[in-house]
Amino acid sequence: MGEHRDDGQTRAGRHAFPGDRSMTAPAQVDVCIIGAGLAGLRAAGRLSEGGRSICVLEARDRVGGRTMGGELCGEPVDLGGQWVGPTQHRVLALCAELGLELYPQYAEGLRLLDIGGRLRRYRGTVPRMSLLAALDAGRAVRGLNRAAATIDPAAPWLAAGAADLDRMTLDQWLRRTLFTRDGRRVLDIMTRAIFTCEAHEISLLAALTTIAGAGSLEVQAEVQGDGAQKLKIRGGAFQLAARLADRLPPGALVLQAPVHAVEPSETGVTVRHAGGEIRAGRVIVALAPALAARIDFGAALPPLRQQLHSRMPMGSVIKALVAYERPFWRARGWSGEVVSDRGPFGPVMDATPPGSPHGFLVGFFDGGHSRALSGAPMDLRRAAAVKALQRYFGPEAATPIGYVDKDWIAEPWSLGGYAGFTAPGTLTTCGPALRLPCGRIHWSGTETATRWIGYLDGALEAGERAAAEVMASPA
Amino acid sequence: MGEHRDDGQTRAGRHAFPGDRSMTAPAQVDVCIIGAGLAGLRAAGRLSEGGRSICVLEARDRVGGRTMGGELCGEPVDLGGQWVGPTQHRVLALCAELGLELYPQYAEGLRLLDIGGRLRRYRGTVPRMSLLAALDAGRAVRGLNRAAATIDPAAPWLAAGAADLDRMTLDQWLRRTLFTRDGRRVLDIMTRAIFTCEAHEISLLAALTTIAGAGSLEVQAEVQGDGAQKLKIRGGAFQLAARLADRLPPGALVLQAPVHAVEPSETGVTVRHAGGEIRAGRVIVALAPALAARIDFGAALPPLRQQLHSRMPMGSVIKALVAYERPFWRARGWSGEVVSDRGPFGPVMDATPPGSPHGFLVGFFDGGHSRALSGAPMDLRRAAAVKALQRYFGPEAATPIGYVDKDWIAEPWSLGGYAGFTAPGTLTTCGPALRLPCGRIHWSGTETATRWIGYLDGALEAGERAAAEVMASPA
Repeated sequence: MGEHRDDGQTRAGRHAFPGDRSMTAPAQVDVCIIGAGLAGLRAAGRLSEGGRSICVLEARDRVGGRTMGGELCGEPVDLGGQWVGPTQHRVLALCAELGLELYPQYAEGLRLLDIGGRLRRYRGTVPRMSLLAALDAGRAVRGLNRAAATIDPAAPWLAAGAADLDRMTLDQWLRRTLFTRDGRRVLDIMTRAIFTCEAHEISLLAALTTIAGAGSLEVQAEVQGDGAQKLKIRGGAFQLAARLADRLPPGALVLQAPVHAVEPSETGVTVRHAGGEIRAGRVIVALAPALAARIDFGAALPPLRQQLHSRMPMGSVIKALVAYERPFWRARGWSGEVVSDRGPFGPVMDATPPGSPHGFLVGFFDGGHSRALSGAPMDLRRAAAVKALQRYFGPEAATPIGYVDKDWIAEPWSLGGYAGFTAPGTLTTCGPALRLPCGRIHWSGTETATRWIGYLDGALEAGERAAAEVMASPA
Repeated sequence: MGEHRDDGQTRAGRHAFPGDRSMTAPAQVDVCIIGAGLAGLRAAGRLSEGGRSICVLEARDRVGGRTMGGELCGEPVDLGGQWVGPTQHRVLALCAELGLELYPQYAEGLRLLDIGGRLRRYRGTVPRMSLLAALDAGRAVRGLNRAAATIDPAAPWLAAGAADLDRMTLDQWLRRTLFTRDGRRVLDIMTRAIFTCEAHEISLLAALTTIAGAGSLEVQAEVQGDGAQKLKIRGGAFQLAARLADRLPPGALVLQAPVHAVEPSETGVTVRHAGGEIRAGRVIVALAPALAARIDFGAALPPLRQQLHSRMPMGSVIKALVAYERPFWRARGWSGEVVSDRGPFGPVMDATPPGSPHGFLVGFFDGGHSRALSGAPMDLRRAAAVKALQRYFGPEAATPIGYVDKDWIAEPWSLGGYAGFTAPGTLTTCGPALRLPCGRIHWSGTETATRWIGYLDGALEAGERAAAEVMASPA
């Protein structure tokens, strides 16, 4: 079945993983890692360096999870997670270690704000809205940051007033905080861009936990300063997984091997996958909880852990890249950055690869905007994106020379992106089960991070933490 | 693995299903039904009567799904769904058809209300609270009924203002509607008892849809009048599934066969299960969406359907029965019915089997109250239940002669009960995918009903509807 699962361009990915890797699965290992995303690969690498025999089982025909390589006009592009922020020390260190070069997200010139039916261009980080709306939005952002500062993202359920914060949706808080329409629109855009859901879907506590893990909402939203969108990896962030996979022992990675059952016993764990079964001393489940729901753990999991798997849906996002003959926006003194409340396409940023003669833009269909277009033919999304870009950038945007996108919602081995989130009532009840090992079963994936939850950096933290847990456990 | 999955008393269930049923799976059938709960068995029976060859795959070692037989002091008891209401025409008709006898839930005498730290006994349906609190609770109930009356439970997403109703939690609505503490407490008890979740977990629209499907909130809550708890099936509701299973053709039911993949093609569907695989023309998935999440459908499902599987968590409930030498409460003129806001055990009702010399009480750990006790040793729950019963009924309740419970949250093939529910934002976006067939894949289970959603009656409707769909479809 694996062949028709991934509709994106995996050439870059495939290139890095010779087919012979998919052939053999060791029957007995110290640690079996389920999922070859960044978290799983990082855990596998650390364990292997630590002298443990390992096997990584991956359902897809590629590694990388929510990072993924694609191609547009002959250039490699990131169809999944890609940006790196200056305070994301783990991914920065890994880039240095792997010899991957970083370069700044293009951000020179005017930004565009399209709110309440008006297009405005502005410079710097403060959009030119009405003073009242700007004050209103600023006050809400500061309010969220202040509340987030009281939360330990490693244990949000212990925060003062956690139960009350988890009883309400982010929407409930925004409704009672914001009093201007445009201010609310700005916060809705930020919600969709950062959490890939609507404000009424996510618990306030869950949103605050993510903010706390990043430092502030501005850091999550921004390209400039310490912003999480400040840097990119030359050649693509998807190379991180490829290089981590390359360093694994031969035969340790098995692709196209979806796991359907994990059966612990007194002496080890049996992992049943599409191609057979593996006996391991311990298992690391390096998957988003919504994907762990696919696995039959029998009666091995405590009820709250089992509940978590059906109470942490994935966000909704489709990432799209549009290529033009030239980066015409740059010539006009525009950065290419667009923030819009009109939907369905935005935010938008410059995505021109260094040295390319062409101009690329990257944008998102996110939250509710993505659902209508998920599963639809790509041409429909292309048309929607180009229409929006014409509105933002004028007639020159009408004639792209290329388009590619990745519908993460329709991807059966992701079920969405960027990450899993929780509705009211889940984090305070099932949250403590997020990282807690269940006997020989350990949990990883960016959802289990305590810093940069949902980001590449969080995935690396989660992989390192899970590996350390296993190393410290009895065999 | 099947042996250690079901910790409850399955003797009654096992008795009805000779082991030879589990042995053979036909390799090719017209219709494969996944799940041998009431919905799946009803669909299977209808299809078989209609001349279709069928195979029912059940993960457990018993049929019945969320109905389940147990034993207490030598008497058969229902550890799962059991009550029948006078407007539940499908289950009433099935009882008549199967020769199962109904008898009224014991409700003679005084009821007990334990709210805000005060125990009050009352007669009839109106509890003796302060006038203000009673008026307040009554107004909220009428408000919910009025709102529910504007909703077609077959398509709540089309209701006027559906998006707004689905943006908020039931808690949001209750907060702005109720102004007395005791009034709010009553509504919280009703929420937990009816939806098995906390008011902040469920979307207002989702709650209203369930109410609309039942007729009114009182009908859902009541023992008297047209109340959904008015009648019981002599010998146990679990017999429904047993008898439906007995009428299937020999070999059509395969137990201990969890399905891990469904792979549709142009000409049929391959269903992979623990014991092998089956080719079918069509498949009916008669599972709660949270359990359908276990199955790998590859890229066969539209994104919104796939999202539904991780956005419809199961409610949280543990059902417990406590036996006493005599039904001492009856002698005192008490019905045995208790409604309490103290937690964790309640509501409580008389559960004495007709003709038994002993006295049984049945009660629930529901919503948030159940989570702390789920997965714990049964003795802990027994102690909690008996402690609560002493408070309600005095020292005579301190010396039970028997206890049995069913922790539905810890049951890997249920993941909770009574039914799946949706948080804000799901019903209006993914709801339309609830019943919509996906090519050769059809959906059933009580969550897909349009009347009595989450009840036995809804399961039968869902089974009948799915069978009719398949009968009307090309082979």
